[in-house]
Amino acid sequence: MKIALAQLNYTIGHFELNAQKITGAIAKAKAEGAKLVIFSELSVCGYPPHDLLTHKHFIDRCNDTVNQIASHCHETYAIVGAPSLNPDSSGKLLFNSAYLLGNGRVLDVFHKTLLPDYDIFDEYRYFEPNPGDYRLVEIDGVKVAITICEDIWDDQPTTSAFARGKLYRDAPMNHLSKLNPDLIINISASPFSYNVEERRLEVFRSNVVRYSKPVIYVNQVGANTELLFDGGSMVMGEKGDILIKLKSFEEDFCVIDTEPFTSVKPSSSFINNNNSRIQRIHNALVMGIHDYFGKMGFSKATLGLSGGIDSAVVLALASRALQTQDIRVLLMPSQYSSRHSVDDAIALAEKLGVKYDIVPIQPIFDSFRYQLRTLFAGKPEDITEENIQARVRGTLLMALSNKFGHLLLNTSNKSEAAVGYGTLYGDMCGALSVLGDVYKTDVYRLAHYINKDEEIIPLNTIQKPPSAELRPNQKDSDSLPPYEILDPILFAYIEQGFSAQEIVRQGFDEATVKKVIKLVNINEYKRFQSAPILRVSSKAFGYGRKMPLVARWD
Amino acid sequence: MKIALAQLNYTIGHFELNAQKITGAIAKAKAEGAKLVIFSELSVCGYPPHDLLTHKHFIDRCNDTVNQIASHCHETYAIVGAPSLNPDSSGKLLFNSAYLLGNGRVLDVFHKTLLPDYDIFDEYRYFEPNPGDYRLVEIDGVKVAITICEDIWDDQPTTSAFARGKLYRDAPMNHLSKLNPDLIINISASPFSYNVEERRLEVFRSNVVRYSKPVIYVNQVGANTELLFDGGSMVMGEKGDILIKLKSFEEDFCVIDTEPFTSVKPSSSFINNNNSRIQRIHNALVMGIHDYFGKMGFSKATLGLSGGIDSAVVLALASRALQTQDIRVLLMPSQYSSRHSVDDAIALAEKLGVKYDIVPIQPIFDSFRYQLRTLFAGKPEDITEENIQARVRGTLLMALSNKFGHLLLNTSNKSEAAVGYGTLYGDMCGALSVLGDVYKTDVYRLAHYINKDEEIIPLNTIQKPPSAELRPNQKDSDSLPPYEILDPILFAYIEQGFSAQEIVRQGFDEATVKKVIKLVNINEYKRFQSAPILRVSSKAFGYGRKMPLVARWD
Repeated sequence: MKIALAQLNYTIGHFELNAQKITGAIAKAKAEGAKLVIFSELSVCGYPPHDLLTHKHFIDRCNDTVNQIASHCHETYAIVGAPSLNPDSSGKLLFNSAYLLGNGRVLDVFHKTLLPDYDIFDEYRYFEPNPGDYRLVEIDGVKVAITICEDIWDDQPTTSAFARGKLYRDAPMNHLSKLNPDLIINISASPFSYNVEERRLEVFRSNVVRYSKPVIYVNQVGANTELLFDGGSMVMGEKGDILIKLKSFEEDFCVIDTEPFTSVKPSSSFINNNNSRIQRIHNALVMGIHDYFGKMGFSKATLGLSGGIDSAVVLALASRALQTQDIRVLLMPSQYSSRHSVDDAIALAEKLGVKYDIVPIQPIFDSFRYQLRTLFAGKPEDITEENIQARVRGTLLMALSNKFGHLLLNTSNKSEAAVGYGTLYGDMCGALSVLGDVYKTDVYRLAHYINKDEEIIPLNTIQKPPSAELRPNQKDSDSLPPYEILDPILFAYIEQGFSAQEIVRQGFDEATVKKVIKLVNINEYKRFQSAPILRVSSKAFGYGRKMPLVARWD
Repeated sequence: MKIALAQLNYTIGHFELNAQKITGAIAKAKAEGAKLVIFSELSVCGYPPHDLLTHKHFIDRCNDTVNQIASHCHETYAIVGAPSLNPDSSGKLLFNSAYLLGNGRVLDVFHKTLLPDYDIFDEYRYFEPNPGDYRLVEIDGVKVAITICEDIWDDQPTTSAFARGKLYRDAPMNHLSKLNPDLIINISASPFSYNVEERRLEVFRSNVVRYSKPVIYVNQVGANTELLFDGGSMVMGEKGDILIKLKSFEEDFCVIDTEPFTSVKPSSSFINNNNSRIQRIHNALVMGIHDYFGKMGFSKATLGLSGGIDSAVVLALASRALQTQDIRVLLMPSQYSSRHSVDDAIALAEKLGVKYDIVPIQPIFDSFRYQLRTLFAGKPEDITEENIQARVRGTLLMALSNKFGHLLLNTSNKSEAAVGYGTLYGDMCGALSVLGDVYKTDVYRLAHYINKDEEIIPLNTIQKPPSAELRPNQKDSDSLPPYEILDPILFAYIEQGFSAQEIVRQGFDEATVKKVIKLVNINEYKRFQSAPILRVSSKAFGYGRKMPLVARWD
């Protein structure tokens, strides 16, 4: 049997667009002689729909769209993902379902059993698990086990110190394998992180080995706010060999043949995606910016270009995601900005062909100080004055955004966000945080990666010591440990979930570790008001890391 | 048997403080001859601990603290709530448990079966449900069924159009009642909303009637960031009559006797809590402010006093939650502010004895305009200039906050937050949103309630048409429907989950309904960066309403 894999980029709630993409792929599959075409989890509505699932009208639209898509399925079968109503009078209202479409109608519906509820997942909030209904479906003589994403992740590699791989007390494949399927289909909405590909391969291989069946995996691609979906759909043979792998970070489509399964002709889609970690992050961030703007209906971006490395990297990424003529940046030097910083910023803007304007902030800063002279009489300058400058910049950027319709890109990195080294309503402004899940040491690596073929980001920007330039001769290292020390401590605490004691045991200075962890904990209130952060790691700030704000804990 | 109910205010992760409160109540119970003292759900660590539960060190501290508390239990038994480790090798790592303590040690552990995962709840993220282990425990000859919060909410009154009462396929009490208990204990962490009391009584009555057993209900009290816990612990006789009701919004303690259960001597704690909706909201907000500051370790507050009703109500509430000498407000008139506004603001500050300063914003606004003159050349004034003024005010308030250590209270209301009638990084600034879950029409009701004994909020503030005063003669009604129309539409959409069509059918103008719903949907990005909002309704903005930001949906 010929089977098509359709890896598409869906917009949440945009039923017309999603249906158009799906029916387009069905027509293409039919034209190429495929008997079955497979789409990803909740493809009809886009993933993750969150609380839109609590609106009846949304569920009705899902249903109508499934039926509309079904009317296009003649000769070719399709598997699409959508919620379905739980007919029982108790239990959650919905299932997370895979619909088998054919003969112009819905032929069968299969429900997801394992509902992830960790990190960025919240499926148990909406869905009832499949209550033990395990069946195969026979298509064109091939017996297929249909599973949905987490259904084959019953035993998964853990990323954190206090987590377990077997989160569920049952495994759907234990039931399905007894029915002796010819192949396993897994429709997914599996978000990117820079180490997810290795984890996926491990999980697929362990399933394939355990059950001696090939797996066809179809993932969605594209960004929905914070979540980046890399695609990477694939076919794995029953020996654990990858027979076909679709593109990463792009829509893709291919047709395979199951007879015999082992000799698939490599298609143009067969790409060996052996990218480095930094390259993957780079590509994911570019897609994240592109889709945020595209799906929001915006094309124009702005940001504050300081001459420092963070804003330089964000601008370089933005210029790859958007049209450079749609980007307009502000240089907002203060009295403490070095001449070098302004020169470096100008050099980068000119190199990329991006329009820039220079708006010095000192006159505005001075008028704030003048209006506050009575209130602040007798008080020495402190962090207050630094924050005013950062907020003047934020206000100028938002003014440009409001006047010309450019969305503001935030340029904070994960190290800063972690320890609260940023000003709320100042440099923390923005519609989207591009680097909020990228540690400073990786921002440098990204800069080098961006410069791999030619010097785009000025070397001076990369080489000078990082500084917020909010007071004379200020350096980040005045108040923070060097990033080479800070970042591994943050990684051990945030991504790996180690305690202070355990991190000290890894060889870090105890006072430094305690100080860093305290900073992370007491700055929850700042991150609470952060822009959405493009997620590239296994533990990003945002709704995948849900810490109580008011708490006493260290 | 004499049983003590201990309704306490816990701080999340503050094990020393929580243990001290619990052991203090154990000593008091013992002194009053109680054989058993009951504490609320997850009392040892405070509720909700969120992702602190993913740290092993946190779980170890819970465990140690339970054992430490147990060492205080001699002659008197105690039931406390804490997470416990799941000994199985599969399933989530933790249970949400009730520990029975006595003879100086942990005697038994009971696990929660029904794990709420809707609205603000996320328990399935962390906990494995009780895998069918239903037992009674006999204490001093009384057979007790121990349940944890949701365990008796298997059939609950719904608040939204597309929700169901029976969210679970099983009910723990169906199993426990077969073992014929003498009474049901329910330890809870049940957050306040202005209609939760009626819902609780309905649920308790239906359990009591179904199983003909009395219920002892112990809830926590106090605020943890957004979530306000009203307490209201009670004893309900087997006929559905309330025998004892503890205070709302305060710690409380009482001892009851079970022999006979029906003739409990009314204690000083027996308060008939028949407060109006607005009075409940008032008391909840005062507690919310008080606890946010107290638990964060702050005492001083600031806010921008405009002469309008929102900031007036927030100031009045803050003056009841904090020491008036710790509150310092800013009046920041613009060129568009009426003289009346300034007078009204001064009158209120003086009436409450709150220190105020006046910082006109026009010179700063002018310096922004001057610095932007080239960039904005030839462009007419628009919302940009209004937003700059709002952001100048935000920056001034944050400057006061930074310089003197006053936390900024946000003064936006729910109607504004819903339709995006507010400026990000401007009037949306603040550490805590006091009125973000209170519709404008209820803000007026709160003002009247605050003025019930004497005129605290100037009548002029209450009577004048609402205006942001950001351009000449601006009125809210220029861009929004009147609040008497807007608020019911918002309520029907947000709290009740009705579709546009259904709301129109209720008698509202179709174009207005569609405009309002569109405004709610497209302003998700603003609310994403909002301060935490004190939750008083059944559906507040914040993590209990989780909408995708990038989506196409109306």
